[in-house]
Amino acid sequence: MHELGVDAVLCSVGADLPYLAGYEAMPLERLTMLVVRANAEAYLVVPRLEAPRVGPLEEVELIAYGETDDPVAVVAGLVGNARGLAIGDHTWARFVIDLQRQLPGRGWSRASEVVGPLRAVKDAAEIEALGAAAHAVDEIAGEMRERPFAGRTELDVHREIADRIVERGHERVNFAIVGSGPNGASPHHDASDRVIEPGDVVVCDFGGTMRGYCSDITRVFSIGEPPAEVRDAYEVLREAQEAAVVAATVGTPCEDVDAAARRIIDAAGLGARFIHRTGHGIGLDAHEDPYIVAGNTTPLVAGHAFSIEPGVYFEGRFGLRLEDIVVATPDGPERLNLAPRELAIVE
Amino acid sequence: MHELGVDAVLCSVGADLPYLAGYEAMPLERLTMLVVRANAEAYLVVPRLEAPRVGPLEEVELIAYGETDDPVAVVAGLVGNARGLAIGDHTWARFVIDLQRQLPGRGWSRASEVVGPLRAVKDAAEIEALGAAAHAVDEIAGEMRERPFAGRTELDVHREIADRIVERGHERVNFAIVGSGPNGASPHHDASDRVIEPGDVVVCDFGGTMRGYCSDITRVFSIGEPPAEVRDAYEVLREAQEAAVVAATVGTPCEDVDAAARRIIDAAGLGARFIHRTGHGIGLDAHEDPYIVAGNTTPLVAGHAFSIEPGVYFEGRFGLRLEDIVVATPDGPERLNLAPRELAIVE
Repeated sequence: MHELGVDAVLCSVGADLPYLAGYEAMPLERLTMLVVRANAEAYLVVPRLEAPRVGPLEEVELIAYGETDDPVAVVAGLVGNARGLAIGDHTWARFVIDLQRQLPGRGWSRASEVVGPLRAVKDAAEIEALGAAAHAVDEIAGEMRERPFAGRTELDVHREIADRIVERGHERVNFAIVGSGPNGASPHHDASDRVIEPGDVVVCDFGGTMRGYCSDITRVFSIGEPPAEVRDAYEVLREAQEAAVVAATVGTPCEDVDAAARRIIDAAGLGARFIHRTGHGIGLDAHEDPYIVAGNTTPLVAGHAFSIEPGVYFEGRFGLRLEDIVVATPDGPERLNLAPRELAIVE
Repeated sequence: MHELGVDAVLCSVGADLPYLAGYEAMPLERLTMLVVRANAEAYLVVPRLEAPRVGPLEEVELIAYGETDDPVAVVAGLVGNARGLAIGDHTWARFVIDLQRQLPGRGWSRASEVVGPLRAVKDAAEIEALGAAAHAVDEIAGEMRERPFAGRTELDVHREIADRIVERGHERVNFAIVGSGPNGASPHHDASDRVIEPGDVVVCDFGGTMRGYCSDITRVFSIGEPPAEVRDAYEVLREAQEAAVVAATVGTPCEDVDAAARRIIDAAGLGARFIHRTGHGIGLDAHEDPYIVAGNTTPLVAGHAFSIEPGVYFEGRFGLRLEDIVVATPDGPERLNLAPRELAIVE
């Protein structure tokens, strides 16, 4: 905080609050806010009716406000004369605006500048939790290779995957993308009532939160034997993904890991179809630091956990993406996802 | 906008964007933002990989940015010399901070000041959608009166209700509170592995989103015949809820509706146990304007839709809450929820 000129950190909804204080704010209109000042007591401000949800807190004092109190005034009082204020990245704008009105003349920054680098480096217990979540979705990815796809809607497959995510021990489903045929060319496609047909290629990208930590995996399913074009593009993708994983050693800048995948896809003449970054950090949030993207010169350190997920998209026809979670370790990159990576041929 | 001194409205995650443009932003680190300037073209700025998710837009031009572009700069360029900027209430703080850095010297306010009053007044199609969602949860509330509770965990009942919410046609579950025995005294209790026992009182408060609009209902279940104390307090609650519903006529200030419920609970000596407001508006968001709370002098107008949900909480023992969605109409208040309101006696 001192190095960054931050005198107080203010956290609301999002993962910083559970990371720092072990409590998750409800995403509602009643403000929940942790106020951390350098070398001073920390306070958690919560609506009175949610106070019973808060478990025992360590080194944080609870302040519960009533239905007609102004929680922004309570927070402003705790902030006092602190000048540099770092506010949780996911805090609702309405609270930023209200706090700025009651605390004029302060400097505002993102709390992720303080908390992001701490959260990005996982300790052994966090890597174990990420590994357990990865193992759960690996099993689902493996099971789906034995399941029929043809004749089912995307939504039906989506629901099956979502159910399995919970059955396998996640406390919540974060997403379950099922992009069949032309819909696979939309990387963040919402599962629809499109019926999957023989000859389709289906991108399944899914994950949830287990013991607080996220899973995220992508595998591709071909309904019947794929044509050479699909097979060839998929092989390029596998090579690109492997190259990026191998490149993800401690000390390597994030952008170089991105470049390792991009180089192979470019060389195959598919560069214009790889329309997104290679990956994102993962932890309490499904997407967090470090981002594996051109322009991010941050060098990987041991404990960084992130996805490696190159993709190529053929508009109006199909998409391909292959994703594993990888941890940078002193002994080199370690994949947490071990589900088969070859193109799945299903019915 | 002109009356409020707002030159541009900027909407991101949350319900304002679907309300204004028919598209819902993904709650991720890539900025999605609608820029609406008075008397000018509107623009929707989205990440390139999400552009295929955007359907046809009316009177809005799509701008897709690449993975290494700065979307904040794109938005700042569209804002131009507009001075008064109203930003969507749920926009992530990181984007507010970044926009403020690139747009210094502007006046910032909440977009809800512009959009909230529009969204709060529902038209016939919106009331029909709210009615359909209410009918779905009414059926679930009715079905639960026939279900056994004793011997099951709160989580088990929670999952059953959540499954029924989806089966009855909601596209998503927003919450399913199951607070048994002492846990019922925590209004926003998270369902736990506590086993429900004979003699428990169980508060079930649940809802989802159906065709974009939210449902929200609360009913109380007594496992076996309740003692006189529970029965008596519940009768007070029924009277208080009925009084607030009856009071919710066009022209009545919201705070008077709250007072109508509070008066009866106070008179019964239970005032200190009614620790929250009487209700909240409902629509695209589960909680929105108008809030039925002391201090809100806004008079109800025809088309306002809101919950009426007084509750009383006996710490360490049990809780009681009764909730229906009500619409203010020219012919008087109309309940959308019609599930039985008498205390349910279950096994």
